Amino acid sequence: MAQQLTYNVGMDIYEQSKKLHREKKGKISIVARDKLDTREKLSLYYTPGMGGVATEAAAGREALNPYSWINNNLAVVSDGSAVLGLGDIGPYGAMPVMEGKAMIFKEFANIDAVPIVLNVHTTDEIVDVVKAIAPSFGAINIEDIAAPKCFEIEERLKNELSIPVMHDDQHGTAVVVLAALINAMKVTEKKLSDCKVTIVGAGAAGVAVSKLIYLYAKPQIIAVDSKGIIEPARQDLNEEKKMLLEFSKDTRPGTLQDAIKDADIFIGLSRGNLLTSEDIKSMGSGAIVFAMANPTPEILPHEAKTGGAKVVATGRSDFANQINNVLAFPGIFRGALDNGVHKITDDHKIAAATAIASLVENVTKDEIMPSVLDPRLVPAIAKVIK
Amino acid sequence: MAQQLTYNVGMDIYEQSKKLHREKKGKISIVARDKLDTREKLSLYYTPGMGGVATEAAAGREALNPYSWINNNLAVVSDGSAVLGLGDIGPYGAMPVMEGKAMIFKEFANIDAVPIVLNVHTTDEIVDVVKAIAPSFGAINIEDIAAPKCFEIEERLKNELSIPVMHDDQHGTAVVVLAALINAMKVTEKKLSDCKVTIVGAGAAGVAVSKLIYLYAKPQIIAVDSKGIIEPARQDLNEEKKMLLEFSKDTRPGTLQDAIKDADIFIGLSRGNLLTSEDIKSMGSGAIVFAMANPTPEILPHEAKTGGAKVVATGRSDFANQINNVLAFPGIFRGALDNGVHKITDDHKIAAATAIASLVENVTKDEIMPSVLDPRLVPAIAKVIK
Repeated sequence: MAQQLTYNVGMDIYEQSKKLHREKKGKISIVARDKLDTREKLSLYYTPGMGGVATEAAAGREALNPYSWINNNLAVVSDGSAVLGLGDIGPYGAMPVMEGKAMIFKEFANIDAVPIVLNVHTTDEIVDVVKAIAPSFGAINIEDIAAPKCFEIEERLKNELSIPVMHDDQHGTAVVVLAALINAMKVTEKKLSDCKVTIVGAGAAGVAVSKLIYLYAKPQIIAVDSKGIIEPARQDLNEEKKMLLEFSKDTRPGTLQDAIKDADIFIGLSRGNLLTSEDIKSMGSGAIVFAMANPTPEILPHEAKTGGAKVVATGRSDFANQINNVLAFPGIFRGALDNGVHKITDDHKIAAATAIASLVENVTKDEIMPSVLDPRLVPAIAKVIK
Repeated sequence: MAQQLTYNVGMDIYEQSKKLHREKKGKISIVARDKLDTREKLSLYYTPGMGGVATEAAAGREALNPYSWINNNLAVVSDGSAVLGLGDIGPYGAMPVMEGKAMIFKEFANIDAVPIVLNVHTTDEIVDVVKAIAPSFGAINIEDIAAPKCFEIEERLKNELSIPVMHDDQHGTAVVVLAALINAMKVTEKKLSDCKVTIVGAGAAGVAVSKLIYLYAKPQIIAVDSKGIIEPARQDLNEEKKMLLEFSKDTRPGTLQDAIKDADIFIGLSRGNLLTSEDIKSMGSGAIVFAMANPTPEILPHEAKTGGAKVVATGRSDFANQINNVLAFPGIFRGALDNGVHKITDDHKIAAATAIASLVENVTKDEIMPSVLDPRLVPAIAKVIK
């Protein structure tokens, strides 16, 4: 059946998905962990018995933890300002995405994730709301909030809350891209530290990917946004784009085509149909092309291969080499909750990427990533988030 | 087993409850409504298929509703400032209560309730946070927020949101008390409009009970707080207590004992061990005593009977005639969600009370209320919330 989807993106899969959603009337439910079928149980789980639990729990998070679902839950929080492939569609549009994520958290990592979509949009408002509801949760997954505000929101929440906070569009993506690069290096027999890497798309994901791979191996990075190469003479750079200059040794002005010429690695986190096979031809030999725009990649795999790319990956499940956050976030949060981790660090992200890469036993150009359905993924990642 | 709890409130039941909570590690979980065991399902429930749902849902709540769990969920929101019998114990202390409520919502009414405890406490902050997260839910159950701020919070949220909002401590209590009075009238052959009703406790519940029974039958009401009878010469009354004067024909200054003398009905929503059997003796013949303080009632049933009370009820499950919000809130929200009700009105509350009362086929002095476990309760109430 998966094969059927290959050239079907658009109307058909959308209608199929709508039908399924309508039938299920949503993707998640709450269940009680015990039946409430006797007065005695009602007395123990509710009033008056619960008075003892409540009194003890009042001391704070640590006291509450053993008695409450907060030891295994998290909030998936979005204002819908930058929904994958759809843009600023607001909280109602974002809800099906967040419910989907909650479904994945449960099915893949047995985490109780609650989708929280917000009717407020400024940095201060979002930070205030998340802090206000934080006692209800064991962790916070920020999702689909637009750059640049997402950077400050995450930074502030990490500093001002004592529970793990992660903006998945940034760090989940960075982890899976690094994992893919680790294995792509094996196929191409390149060394990441010697590579020229062109990253297109300087939003949340592009910034985080640049940071993490620079931290990991200090390759030569050229970041490109919709106006061309990001370089110091540009007057239109926000704080985060300016930070990209730190990771970028070659900062001469130029176009996307200039940036891609002689690159070893192309990482696309931008929009569909950006490149042609001619562009790929201008890259170095044994080129690695990660065309991750969703649902339509920057270049389709067969076109990239026509251009001479050796390893091609996308975000999609219907092509070989799927690089998708789903590979990372369930295990990262599973580990954080299990191991009492308060902050998810760069070391955690590198460890997670390494764990993901190591699950592919025989790395080939068409198999650099484990399947998103691989049951070893979550335990392997969770183990290293400690 | 229920019998065993009767004289066991305190250490034993508290320890039993803590043990059970620790074993279960919380009272609720999230479940996915379908398995995510194939790439195809992942494509339909998540990216890329869900793009169609998200695009359509972006139009707003009505568009999202058929695709999302919001058609069957609600938030149980508290800042923990007035937790039943425990006072201002904050969000962590409140969490086990809200989780208990979520468990009841699921088990009794199949509603997906999410406990949200807040780290903010002013009226404006609470209103702002609830409004910000409201797109995530189909209804809002406000819970255990202190008077008088609870009144303004509920009023503002009802006006500023398009979904049902109900402060259960007020209206759930008012509904069950009215239901109990309707049947107590049958036993005592009194007419509520002719009765003198003494209500002790002018917090959220006391105010709402006074309002609803006055609206229903205009009995003579005397409201009493910790300083005595609430009457116009008092200089210490907040806005809500002043409103109580509207329902109160007899407003001479006096003590609790003055207020209770010759009363037909005593409704206690205050604190344990407030009355003696001598106090009950001063009431009119065929006295009705609802001693609802939890866990220790204002007077124990056998003492009230010694004083001559004809009908005695408490909030507890281990005595006859339990008057507990659990009888009302699951059905009220079930009806609101099922019937697309945007506002829960006084008419709804009276209809709910009548529905609850009508479920007792043979009303006697020891059976004025249906069991909280009666499976007919939720459908009977839901039907009239339309």
